[in-house]
This record gives sequence, C-alpha cells and structure tokens, in this order.
Amino acid sequence: MIKTDILIIGAGPTGLFAVFEAGLLKLKCHLIDALPQPGGQCAEIYPKKPIYDIPGFPEVLAGDLVDNLMEQIKPFDPGFTLGERAETIEKQEDGSFIVTTNKGTKHHAPVVAIAGGLGSFEPRKPLLENLDQYEDKGISYIIRDPEVYRDKRVVIAGGGDSALDWSIFLADVASEVTLIHRRNEFRGALDSVEKVEELKKLGKINLITPAEITKLHGNGHLEAVTVKVDAEEQLLETDHFIPLFGLSPKLGPIANWGLEIEKNAIKVDNTLDYQTNIPGIYAIGDVNTYPGKLKLILCGFHEATLMCQSAYKRIFPEKRYVMKYTTVSGIDGFDGTRKEAEKAVIKTIN
Amino acid sequence: MIKTDILIIGAGPTGLFAVFEAGLLKLKCHLIDALPQPGGQCAEIYPKKPIYDIPGFPEVLAGDLVDNLMEQIKPFDPGFTLGERAETIEKQEDGSFIVTTNKGTKHHAPVVAIAGGLGSFEPRKPLLENLDQYEDKGISYIIRDPEVYRDKRVVIAGGGDSALDWSIFLADVASEVTLIHRRNEFRGALDSVEKVEELKKLGKINLITPAEITKLHGNGHLEAVTVKVDAEEQLLETDHFIPLFGLSPKLGPIANWGLEIEKNAIKVDNTLDYQTNIPGIYAIGDVNTYPGKLKLILCGFHEATLMCQSAYKRIFPEKRYVMKYTTVSGIDGFDGTRKEAEKAVIKTIN
Ligand SMILES: Cc1cc2nc3c(=O)[nH]c(=O)nc-3n(C[C@H](O)[C@H](O)[C@H](O)COP(=O)(O)OP(=O)(O)OC[C@H]3O[C@@H](n4cnc5c(N)ncnc54)[C@H](O)[C@@H]3O)c2cc1C
Ligand SMILES: Cc1cc2nc3c(=O)[nH]c(=O)nc-3n(C[C@H](O)[C@H](O)[C@H](O)COP(=O)(O)OP(=O)(O)OC[C@H]3O[C@@H](n4cnc5c(N)ncnc54)[C@H](O)[C@@H]3O)c2cc1C
Repeated sequence: MIKTDILIIGAGPTGLFAVFEAGLLKLKCHLIDALPQPGGQCAEIYPKKPIYDIPGFPEVLAGDLVDNLMEQIKPFDPGFTLGERAETIEKQEDGSFIVTTNKGTKHHAPVVAIAGGLGSFEPRKPLLENLDQYEDKGISYIIRDPEVYRDKRVVIAGGGDSALDWSIFLADVASEVTLIHRRNEFRGALDSVEKVEELKKLGKINLITPAEITKLHGNGHLEAVTVKVDAEEQLLETDHFIPLFGLSPKLGPIANWGLEIEKNAIKVDNTLDYQTNIPGIYAIGDVNTYPGKLKLILCGFHEATLMCQSAYKRIFPEKRYVMKYTTVSGIDGFDGTRKEAEKAVIKTIN
Repeated sequence: MIKTDILIIGAGPTGLFAVFEAGLLKLKCHLIDALPQPGGQCAEIYPKKPIYDIPGFPEVLAGDLVDNLMEQIKPFDPGFTLGERAETIEKQEDGSFIVTTNKGTKHHAPVVAIAGGLGSFEPRKPLLENLDQYEDKGISYIIRDPEVYRDKRVVIAGGGDSALDWSIFLADVASEVTLIHRRNEFRGALDSVEKVEELKKLGKINLITPAEITKLHGNGHLEAVTVKVDAEEQLLETDHFIPLFGLSPKLGPIANWGLEIEKNAIKVDNTLDYQTNIPGIYAIGDVNTYPGKLKLILCGFHEATLMCQSAYKRIFPEKRYVMKYTTVSGIDGFDGTRKEAEKAVIKTIN
C-alpha cells in the first residue's frame, strides 16, 4: 500500500504544480497517471508546440513547461504510479481514502486531489478480430520503453505525429520498421514528414500506403499481420504491431465515484477551495467546473494552490499555517536540499 | 483625455498580465502607476531576489519576471501613465469611468481594474523643516531619470539597498556623490556593500556615518544641507538631496472610492469575476480580498484572466466569445505582429 498526504490523480501541469504547493506546506504527494510519462495533455498531445499564455513566458514549448515543472517539484520528491488508471475509491472510517488502479496498485491518503484533465487518456484501437488476445503480446498502443523493440521487427500504423516520430526513433532501434497508413498523405510537423521520407529512401523505414492491417496472426504471441494494399492482401511477418491512432481522454471510472458531474466535469466549490461534494476530495484543473471556469493551465495553478491550503487544514485541523513568501523563506526540499535568496548583510563600511 | 478599454490601476505583475489576457480578447489597456517603472513590489522592493513559486520557473529573479511580462504583453502595446497616482474616479452616465491622477491626467474607460497591490508606493520622508518647499527643486525621493544628476553634486541618505545601489550608479554620473547614514552599518546585498567600500577608497563616493541631515538651505532651489556628525554640524553644498528611506504602500485615495474595504483590501466577488461592489470596477491581485485569498503572484494571474472575460462581456454584451488556446490560434498583436505555432503539414511521402 502506497501512503501519502495528498494523492493526486493525474500528472498534468495542474497535478504537478500541486506537488510544489503541497511541499511548501510540508505535505507529501503521490501521483497516478494512465500515461507512461508525466505532463498530461502538454506531454501527450503537443509537447513540441509553443504556449503563449503561461504568465512570465512570452513563449514556452509545452514539453519544456512540463520539464520545468518536474524540475520545480524535484525537491518535494513526489511518488509516481504511471501507466495505471485510478479505478476505484473507498472512503475509510477515519475519513481517509484508498484508491486502487486497474492494475491493483493501492494508495492510501487523507486527501485526494483529482487533476484528471479531460480524463484518462485511452488509445483509439483498430477494429480487428482477436485484438485483445495479442495486447501486451506483440500489440501495444503506447510506447513505454523503446528498448523492448531493440533488434525486433516492428509494424507501426498511423498517419500523424506519433506514427511519424516513433517510426523515426525506432528506425535506429528495431531491426526493421514498417510504417503503414491508409492514405498516402501524412499529417505532422514538416521536419518529421521529411525525415521519414529520407529514412525511407535510405531503406531504414519500409513504407506501405495506402494500406490497412486486416488480420493478426500468431500462436500466443503475435507473429504476423495481413496488410491490405489496394485490393491485395499480403502477409507481413513481425514481432510487434503498434497502432498509433491517437489517444482520447475519458473521464472513465471517476464518473462513478459519487461526485457531482456537470458537462463531463466535476463540480467544485470555487468560492473557497475547489472541494467536491465529497469532503476530502478536491478537483483541480481542466477536470473541474464552476461558474466562469476556463480550461487554462494558469487557472489550474491557482486552483492547486488554494486546494493545498484547504488540504492542510483538513490534515492538521489544530495547526495554524502562516503563509510565507518563498523569496523570504526559501525552499526546504524533502530530499534535504535548500534553496534560498542571498541574505542581506549588515556591515560597516570602513 | 486618455481613452482605453480597460484602465488598470497598478502596473505590478497582476496588472501587467491583465494586459495580455485583455489583448487575447482584443481589448486595449492603459496602466497608471505611482512608481516611475512597471513591476510593482517585484521591481521596487526585490528585483534582484529569486522567487521560487512562479509555476514553471524553478527560480526566477523578481526583476526578470517583470521583464518577461513586459516582453509578453508587448504585442498588445499598452499605454502607461507612470509616476502618477490615481486620485479620483467619476462614474459617467453611460456607466464608464473617468480616473484622474494627482497630476491631473485624465483617463476614460468602460472598465476599471484596480491592481493596486498593497497600495500606491509612497516614499518615507525625513522630518525636516521646509522639506516640501524643495521637493522637485533639488529634493526627490525616487530616481526617475538618472541623467538629471549628470555632473551635479548629489547627497544620498539611507542605509539599505536603494541607497547603496544608487550611490554606486550615480558615482559614474554625478560630479560628486555623498552617502550619509545614521549608523555605521549598512544593510544590503554583500556585493553592493563591498562595491560602496571600494568606491569610497577610490574617492568616488564620499561616505559620512553616523550622520544625519538636519537642515536644508537654498533660495528657491536646494543649495546646501546641514549634516550632523556626532554632535557637530557642518554645511555641505549640493545640488540634489535624495533621501532613500524606503517606500511604504498606502491604499490611499482608492479607499475613498465607495468600494467595500476589509482589512485594507477591496472585497470582490470571487465566485465569478473579481468584481467589486461597483459594477464595472474590478480588483485583482494583492489589492483584493475574499474567503481563502492568498497574496501570491500566481493568484493575481488567475484573477486577471477571469476578470478580463467578465470585462469583455460588459463591454460587448451582445457578442459571444469562444475561448481559444493560444497554441492553436496564435497571438495577433495590436502592433501587427503575429506569433503562431508551426503548422502541421499534410504531405505525401514519395
Ligand atoms: C492542442 C492543445 C493546445 C492547448 N493550448 C493551450 C494554451 O495555449 N494555453 C493553455 O492554458 N492551455 C492550453 N491547452 C489546454 C491545456 O493543455 C490544459 O488546460 C492542461 O493540460 C490541463 O492540465 P491538467 O493538469 O488539469 O490536465 P491534463 O493535462 O489533461 O492531465 C490530466 C492527466 O490525468 C490523467 N488521468 C485522468 N483520469 C485518470 C485516471 N482515472 N487515472 C489515471 N490518470 C488519469 C490523464 O491521463 C492526464 O495525463 C491546450 C490543449 C491542447 C490539446
Ligand atoms: C520581499 C517580498 C518577497 C515576496 N516573495 C513572493 C514570492 O516568493 N511569491 C509570491 O507569489 N509573491 C511574493 N511576494 C508578493 C508579491 O510581490 C505580490 O503578491 C505581488 O507583487 C502582487 O502583485 P500586484 O500586481 O497585485 O501588486 P503590486 O506588485 O503591489 O503592484 C501594485 C502597484 O500598484 C500601484 N498603485 C497602487 N495604488 C495606486 C494608485 N492609486 N495610483 C497609482 N498606482 C497605484 C503601486 O505603486 C504598485 O506599483 C513578495 C513580496 C515581497 C515584498
């Protein structure tokens, strides 16, 4: 059982920044995310695109923002359960909660902060017979660890950035990369499209378009796929098939936790602390709704900050917290690090 | 008469960021600040100190944050009335407002956003006879344009960072710099104290401690000051006397505008849009109060953002605004500039 002070569901920008604000209050956090990496939409959907409305950044790439947040929260040493979806929540007699993931990992905390964005990102799957039988046995929808594909034959399907970028990346790792798309046109960053074109010419990517995978073959583990090019079907031997048709967010299991839901979002008390109708469960960032709500990153930061103050009072009802400026008090990391402004000296000038 | 869409009182981080959010909605802003430079507390009190809790910045100097915000809002070309204090407000028949400064500058806008922080920064003045008679005639409390002191004799009084840093700066500009402090010890950044020590040894700063200015002399313009060192008084000829005893913020005239005030701050409706009890007047950042309020920069950013949405509806009651992500829509500056993410291409790979 993983124990923490604030259990955060969703490691997008809002969940990440909550770790920092909790840390200032000496509260520890643990984050659960269905994706294999932190960063939420920023990391999954548009890591290489610029955002212009993060205060203080005239321009910042979404991926860099996530890296900066990870660096900022490092002193507060958060725990992560990645690649798992928070599935059920049970309220304990003492008012605390146990949250269990789809893989059975259990987390225990007095406060739960749902920072689930538009929901847990679930892959769009192709409609193929026996698909589930090969899942994790040759078929995967998200690349967690590219080393799995070293010196293996890989078939990637898709026509967007993920399919392009992973084909490029795996061309150096796998023994054979085949990229299959049902159209001739790809949609992505110009340099990715051009790079795939180049690798194709070098014979490092095998490109088949317009084409579709129509059948899966193998005894236990995937061994081959049938590719339909125009009207012709051909058998292609492979160790892995990775359909990259995008991820779509689903509020999913959280919708059944007894929380008040409105327009696919969780209603919170914006007059005070972004708490839901269940005391001890907060909802911050894109996942919540209230009058005037804007689904913006900078709003999630503010909500996370006020939420942590309220969580502190819930966890330590007897203590009185006096807010201090980070500039004045510095940052004491849980890892023993300390950051602080250079102190003024009091000194006679001779 | 200066005309604008949103008149912002206070050019601290909150007021500055409001310009950006208003710009996204195609609303123009004009800012009034009592200080000669934008940036509020960050620029005036701790420009060289690090802040650790601005989301996405593991560490940022307060002065750099202000520079970044100025850069971020540049495309929206805000107007500034600096070095003037907003003094009176008059509601017009059409619901718009006219705000007049202590120097008589008039501003007209349908919406006023008070981002006044802890109040307008007013200098702490020494208790000296005829002080006001020499104000702007040899005596100033804030250095607006250092060129005023070129090749002039300057006496600075004070023992903190401002006194140290301006003495250092003016040592290269003025013909003579005298620094006077009532103690032997100075309180400031180590390198500032050491630099003054060095300049003193080089004869570029004339240091008199422990000492005090006790009298002012001059016919119309300041010509000399009396310095008391221990029990002895001596006459010191000078063109300028700059007492740098710090600035203290005073809510000041705004307190009499008919706004609901609580604990020296303006009460706002945090359930929606940070509007005050007077429709059309908003209060954002440190200057406002509501249940759970935190006087943090990141909260001001959120409040500014929601305020702009409400201001938009007030100014264009008939239009429906659909929020767009900056990443997706880019930024169209009022100065004709455009920033945008690189577009995805749709391209056949041959
Ligand atoms: C193309 C694009 C451009 C954008 N541009 C901007 C912009 O310019 N400015 C701006 O402010 N915003 C922009 N946004 C929106 C911004 O990305 C979101 O506001 C932000 O990501 C919300 O952060 P969050 O942390 O609340 O949620 P998210 O980033 O959505 O993260 C939520 C995380 O929670 C996880 N999760 C959800 N449910 C579960 C569960 N049950 N178990 C485990 N994990 C779960 C998800 O997998 C996800 O990783 C843009 C969005 C897109 C798609
Ligand atoms: C030493 C120190 C360290 C700090 N550290 C942190 C930190 O680590 N993190 C953090 O989030 N915050 C910190 N703060 C607080 C932070 O600086 C404030 O929250 C922030 O400056 C508030 O911004 P603002 O724009 O609302 O107001 P301000 O920065 O106070 O700006 C308000 C401006 O309005 C002007 N004004 C007011 N009334 C009038 C008028 N009638 N006419 C004309 N002008 C007027 C003032 O002159 C001022 O320039 C710190 C503050 C100090 C002093």
